Amino acid sequence: MSGNVAVAAVDWGTTRLRVWLLDRSGAPLAERRGDDGLITAQKAGFSNVLEGHLAQLQAPGDLPVVICGMAGSRQGWIEAPYVDVPSSIKAILKGAARIPGESRDIRIVPGLAQRLADRPDVMRGEETQLAGAGLPATGTHTVCMPGTHSKWVSVREGTVAGFGTWPTGELYSVLAEHSILRHSLGEKPASVAADDPVFRKSCEIALSEGGDILSRLFGIRAGGLLHGLGAADAAATLSGLLIGAEIASARQRYRIEGREVTLVASGPLGVLYGAALGLAGIAINPVDADDAVRAGLFEAARQNGMIAGASA
Amino acid sequence: MSGNVAVAAVDWGTTRLRVWLLDRSGAPLAERRGDDGLITAQKAGFSNVLEGHLAQLQAPGDLPVVICGMAGSRQGWIEAPYVDVPSSIKAILKGAARIPGESRDIRIVPGLAQRLADRPDVMRGEETQLAGAGLPATGTHTVCMPGTHSKWVSVREGTVAGFGTWPTGELYSVLAEHSILRHSLGEKPASVAADDPVFRKSCEIALSEGGDILSRLFGIRAGGLLHGLGAADAAATLSGLLIGAEIASARQRYRIEGREVTLVASGPLGVLYGAALGLAGIAINPVDADDAVRAGLFEAARQNGMIAGASA
Repeated sequence: MSGNVAVAAVDWGTTRLRVWLLDRSGAPLAERRGDDGLITAQKAGFSNVLEGHLAQLQAPGDLPVVICGMAGSRQGWIEAPYVDVPSSIKAILKGAARIPGESRDIRIVPGLAQRLADRPDVMRGEETQLAGAGLPATGTHTVCMPGTHSKWVSVREGTVAGFGTWPTGELYSVLAEHSILRHSLGEKPASVAADDPVFRKSCEIALSEGGDILSRLFGIRAGGLLHGLGAADAAATLSGLLIGAEIASARQRYRIEGREVTLVASGPLGVLYGAALGLAGIAINPVDADDAVRAGLFEAARQNGMIAGASA
Repeated sequence: MSGNVAVAAVDWGTTRLRVWLLDRSGAPLAERRGDDGLITAQKAGFSNVLEGHLAQLQAPGDLPVVICGMAGSRQGWIEAPYVDVPSSIKAILKGAARIPGESRDIRIVPGLAQRLADRPDVMRGEETQLAGAGLPATGTHTVCMPGTHSKWVSVREGTVAGFGTWPTGELYSVLAEHSILRHSLGEKPASVAADDPVFRKSCEIALSEGGDILSRLFGIRAGGLLHGLGAADAAATLSGLLIGAEIASARQRYRIEGREVTLVASGPLGVLYGAALGLAGIAINPVDADDAVRAGLFEAARQNGMIAGASA
């Protein structure tokens, strides 16, 4: 490995993990991806899994490591206690918890907790994406991070004011695999294109009906029986309804009319959400999710004095 | 069996079946319940399953049989083609399809289809409950039939004007068994009581937010992590949110403000929906679902001239 590697950055989720070696400017020198997320690491041992990846990357034995994601949950390596919102983004990163008993300096960025009696919510991993999304230090910003559990975050003057979770990706999978809609979508649901008119129309319906889509879900099955709706159109309808409902709901909660939304996403999902936000008349500031999490992890390392010679 | 048996009535669903022997007034003389619904009967043979139950009930060999439910679907015994709405309730019952090649007179009540491009929908079985619900022949009525796929029906002057399906029961099962909420609800979700304050509060939240509950679903998980929400309260929250969302949505679609809703339901589910409709300020006309399906089946037999000596 090149001698100018400064830190290893790890995004360690429930089912997957990514490791980057970063230089002193935060630029990636090397990357590895693995399926040894939390679930695998609980059995194989977190230290073993991490050291295996670092060895493959020929990382120096004393290279510091900064981690975000479910590895910091109660079921993870160690629990990095939640930081309560409202909290400044800087304070979140500074709260990284050091793993005891390791020869390297290894720290895990904490998740966020919203301890409202009425709207309890949590995140782990997205706080790091948020920190790396390049938001201006001032002003009010709404950030959308789509995924299995999509997060919407309200940031004011560099402080996370509040957030919400819409389990859109999980609803899609669970309905496609385990509900009556499995007959409609088929064994391998088709991927959905953002310019698919069926996706767009379903999205518009969900937006115009304020997210009230539950009876539309059964309509996918009935559409197959009565109108010959095929598997690809069924998948596009389900996707459009769920994403449209999420945006309809979040738009109302965060009063984003007329304001730009920072969309932190990658790949096809980012394109779908970009299209859906466009249908809702919401302008977007697109940020690549991989870039954001890497930048957030690097900033966490910097804030915690883990980058040799760099000042926090 | 008593000599005054007039007809056998069968409610034949996807997973279960019920058979009654009815006298000439429609009163039940005997009943059997079985787990040999559509799925079992597809393998065992519909005729075999039915004759087995009739033999146990010592039914005469020439007793006519009237059936409703999924046995009349494409995957059933024979397909009893859908009747399109709008349709008079009488015409639906008259459309019963006779099974060919059987020595008995066996007929299956058709389901209903709503062939709107925008709101396709189907039902099989509930049309018979509706016919037996004792609605007045005149006036406008809204009927709620809760279940796996809850049906709401708008009836005007004895004609089914339209209907909708909310897959509330299925969403509950699928989320409880297959989503992240399985960690919150536990292996055997607790049954929910209608006077449970957690159920009632969740229902009120869903009603006040117009059925926009998707982000509240993840809140059940977060409530467990942050506030120690237990399994019974998690089940009550999920049930209250889903039932409240169904009512919020249907209330808006059918503009039922100020009008009574006929609630066709049995057992604990009927009590939950009665409470939830009460929280929505909607008065109910409760009808027992078992009585309704039996009365509907008897009326179908009568309309089709299957009751010896009775005039249609």
